[in-house]
Amino acid sequence: MSVMIGSVSERLAPDSDFMIWNATTNESTVDTVTRDMQRVKVAAAVTFMSGIFQLLLGLVQFGFVVTYLSEPLVRGYTTGAAIHVIVSQLKYTFGISPDRYSGPLSLIYTVLDVCYLLPTTNVGTLVVSIVTIVGLIIAKELNTCFMRKFPIPIPVELFAVIIATLVSWRFDLKTKYEIEVVGQIPSGLQPPVLPEFSLFASIIGDAFALSVVGYGIAISLGRTFALKYGYKVDSNQELIALGLSNSIGALFQCFAISCSMSRTMVQISTGGKTQVAGALSAVVMLIILLKIGELFEELPKAVLAAIILVNLHGMLKQFTDIPQLWRTNKVDMLVWVVTMILTVVLNPDLGLAASIAFSMLTVIFRTQLPKYSLLGQVPDTDIYRPVEDYNQVKEIPGLVIFRSSATLYYANAEMYVDALAERSGMDIAKLLSRKKKLEAKRLRKEKKEAKKAKKEAKKREKQVEETSEESDHEEKFEITMEENAHETDSDLPKAIILDLSPVNFLDTVGVKTLRNIQKDYGEAGVQVLLSCCQNCVVESLEKGDFFNEKVTKAILFSTVHDAVLYCQKTEDEDMEATHF
Amino acid sequence: MSVMIGSVSERLAPDSDFMIWNATTNESTVDTVTRDMQRVKVAAAVTFMSGIFQLLLGLVQFGFVVTYLSEPLVRGYTTGAAIHVIVSQLKYTFGISPDRYSGPLSLIYTVLDVCYLLPTTNVGTLVVSIVTIVGLIIAKELNTCFMRKFPIPIPVELFAVIIATLVSWRFDLKTKYEIEVVGQIPSGLQPPVLPEFSLFASIIGDAFALSVVGYGIAISLGRTFALKYGYKVDSNQELIALGLSNSIGALFQCFAISCSMSRTMVQISTGGKTQVAGALSAVVMLIILLKIGELFEELPKAVLAAIILVNLHGMLKQFTDIPQLWRTNKVDMLVWVVTMILTVVLNPDLGLAASIAFSMLTVIFRTQLPKYSLLGQVPDTDIYRPVEDYNQVKEIPGLVIFRSSATLYYANAEMYVDALAERSGMDIAKLLSRKKKLEAKRLRKEKKEAKKAKKEAKKREKQVEETSEESDHEEKFEITMEENAHETDSDLPKAIILDLSPVNFLDTVGVKTLRNIQKDYGEAGVQVLLSCCQNCVVESLEKGDFFNEKVTKAILFSTVHDAVLYCQKTEDEDMEATHF
Repeated sequence: MSVMIGSVSERLAPDSDFMIWNATTNESTVDTVTRDMQRVKVAAAVTFMSGIFQLLLGLVQFGFVVTYLSEPLVRGYTTGAAIHVIVSQLKYTFGISPDRYSGPLSLIYTVLDVCYLLPTTNVGTLVVSIVTIVGLIIAKELNTCFMRKFPIPIPVELFAVIIATLVSWRFDLKTKYEIEVVGQIPSGLQPPVLPEFSLFASIIGDAFALSVVGYGIAISLGRTFALKYGYKVDSNQELIALGLSNSIGALFQCFAISCSMSRTMVQISTGGKTQVAGALSAVVMLIILLKIGELFEELPKAVLAAIILVNLHGMLKQFTDIPQLWRTNKVDMLVWVVTMILTVVLNPDLGLAASIAFSMLTVIFRTQLPKYSLLGQVPDTDIYRPVEDYNQVKEIPGLVIFRSSATLYYANAEMYVDALAERSGMDIAKLLSRKKKLEAKRLRKEKKEAKKAKKEAKKREKQVEETSEESDHEEKFEITMEENAHETDSDLPKAIILDLSPVNFLDTVGVKTLRNIQKDYGEAGVQVLLSCCQNCVVESLEKGDFFNEKVTKAILFSTVHDAVLYCQKTEDEDMEATHF
Repeated sequence: MSVMIGSVSERLAPDSDFMIWNATTNESTVDTVTRDMQRVKVAAAVTFMSGIFQLLLGLVQFGFVVTYLSEPLVRGYTTGAAIHVIVSQLKYTFGISPDRYSGPLSLIYTVLDVCYLLPTTNVGTLVVSIVTIVGLIIAKELNTCFMRKFPIPIPVELFAVIIATLVSWRFDLKTKYEIEVVGQIPSGLQPPVLPEFSLFASIIGDAFALSVVGYGIAISLGRTFALKYGYKVDSNQELIALGLSNSIGALFQCFAISCSMSRTMVQISTGGKTQVAGALSAVVMLIILLKIGELFEELPKAVLAAIILVNLHGMLKQFTDIPQLWRTNKVDMLVWVVTMILTVVLNPDLGLAASIAFSMLTVIFRTQLPKYSLLGQVPDTDIYRPVEDYNQVKEIPGLVIFRSSATLYYANAEMYVDALAERSGMDIAKLLSRKKKLEAKRLRKEKKEAKKAKKEAKKREKQVEETSEESDHEEKFEITMEENAHETDSDLPKAIILDLSPVNFLDTVGVKTLRNIQKDYGEAGVQVLLSCCQNCVVESLEKGDFFNEKVTKAILFSTVHDAVLYCQKTEDEDMEATHF
């Protein structure tokens, strides 16, 4: 959250807008007071707008958007955002002032600029940074070790801030070593002001991203605890609550809210259960805000940066997701990595949109590279399994049982047809051309027969004066040809059974594909049967005019085995018919 | 194709860039010669670039991109593009000069401008337009009627152009009625020139859209005929061919090529089969280009616009797709309508990208609104069907058999859990809270028992001095409680069987969802069995560490019936165990 607001407020109110020429030192300095006022305005406007977005999304029951933020995406995104925060803090850690960049690739430019400016590092600031970082890490490690002895974790950050302020004030680090300090902190509450509407056009993208991400983080944490303590979270109610907090809070120049894992854990470990716990901590915060804030004016900025960097350490641990996802699911690893890169390169707002789009695209990928298999029977059962995966399964002679591991729709329909042709060894094009040849033969035969009939008629006119050797010979030839034709036909399987159990839905392209398969193989004399169709698939077939007088619902079978039995039965009947 | 090139060349070389102040008439006119030269340059640059794109796509074997252009998308897109062409021709039909607009919504602005300028219509131009349109429609209708008598359709457009040119030249329409004519047509071939590289940055989007659309149209037509005549089209080879034609042709200021249904039909009906037919028609075109072009300088532009409008009539017939798709597949209708609207509103280049994105999104929609059903047994068979769809199916007592019609992945995982809880009537949250209560009771009982044990020990110490009425009473109470607990437990089904046959793939969210279901219901004492998993699903489960010591592969069943039999068997064994 802070990253996103930070990036937008720095983009819309950069240092360069608030330069003051100092005639005595012949240098330009930044008018931080005016700059920070402007930045607060930007932050308040973004917060207000994101609150309004959340409110609207909640009112139109749009809570389900969060389902698009899958876990790999959220973790990749937060890692990318953490990198943004780290880069934004480097200037305080080293005491340098790189140029500000905005828009895509701004992070890369900033890093290059920081590297370029490294020789100008303020040594005092760097020392403060290193001491604070090392101190914090040691304190945190100790904290983890002694965790069991204390009911709540020790607030090491608070101690760091207090110690650093005292040291800075006692040794006057600001003037002696030119270490930048926080400076004036306004205390007390601000009177409510309307947000600056003129800013709205330039922050709309950020505000939307902020509203979705803030909501996503809040709802996922909420759900974790809901599951743990056995209650339910209403995602739309949550949106409305966040929206009201942000839009009303922004009038008092408040910062966009979301939630914090660590603070929630503290709340729980101290026994807080109802809303009263929340109210109490709000009162404590109010006292700090009104009274104690101004004591920290001498705090070096490098200490704040160090606290941020140390706390982001956990975020960077998320990089270990990569090897873990590589083992468990490569596509999800791709989502993680691409989201992280997009967030780093395109900044959090555009990066989120691009990542969600990419994440949706992976669904297409996954269904676009299905595994096509021929199925065979597990002996003496009604179970059919892919032939290549199991040794014991047997293909049924004369039948092709085909299954794709994915649903059938526009993006893989063509591959389905190709794979069927390849696996079954029946190329439709070849089948059709052979069919044409057979047709041509038949025509020739018919012609010959017509000739023969004429001849015979002539012969009859001659009233069988001679033995008809020649015509006998011709007849024999005909029979051989017919047998040949019959033989090539019996090379073909009797039927193709398509196992459609993995089909989730059928679009018009899917229906058309099935119709073409039915038609093309049907013309070549191969029956096409469909099995294991879900009801919605049958409905789509009905609506898509798949069935007609020739193709009836009799080709639908509830299991593969039923279809196989049907084929074997009709085969037997055919055999019997020919025997009799 | 022509629409897309037309729109980009008009955008990059608008009339307003070529205004000449005419001092005598005190009016500014368009320097059409320079303008058209610039437009040709733009067209050649776009063509060149799209050729290069096609070549590259072909070389990296990217022919599969065409699979994203589903039929509803292509038809919606061409309809939207046709509307763009119609609007672009209106100014010639009415003889008016609206302002040019570019970017999103430019079509809307143009239409508004045309309406605003309608009162300034040039009556002569309008009369020419109407006469040509009516004449063409009649001629085309006659053409359809006499289709069977002629081997090839009559080229009515050619006659229209010849007649219009003769009339315009004879009656000098240009000067008498201020009707705009085509003007100077350069004849002969142009010497090759390199395209203007400075234009490339501003046309990259259009060029890419053009390359994909041009390829999409060509390949879909190619496939239609390949299927008809039994040969195969290599999509990558096709891309390379188109790419070479466009990139080399563009050096000679050629227009981007694709293919034409009507011309292909002419070719076929006149008996053309090999590449020689193509070479011959090229020679005919060359002769026309070199010799006859300049004869048509007096042709009114309104006639050309009329020809375009009449020919687009077929495209507009595609609007009848809407009611047809409404009947067959509502999501595909949505794709059609959204593609058309996006194309109209965002212009063909951005519109295509947005439409493809939307079309992919529908796959998410379709799998996001699955039908969740409880399955029951068709009596005396091993077939299980949704209870709500069939009257005769019977739910197996004590078992919940659950199926989602769609695959299980991040976008619908949560709905899956909710639907399972709702359909089975077992809310995990409630189950867990009850489990906790039971646990608490058990603890209480244990405490009491401990107390009792103490008491009894005491009693024994007293060596049974009195009858133990009180403790007897307590024992009875305990038993009642235990029975109650047992009763509530036996309300629960014994097992949940998930039919995973429609699952195409499992992402990490899917694995986690199944693991949570397994864990949560397992803790409440309900067994969770998985049936009909495809091999890839089992693999994902293995890799995602779904199986462990407690959850073994024994929970996988190849059919629902096997899982049911297993449950019934273990139930019987339990019964027997309790009986003995």
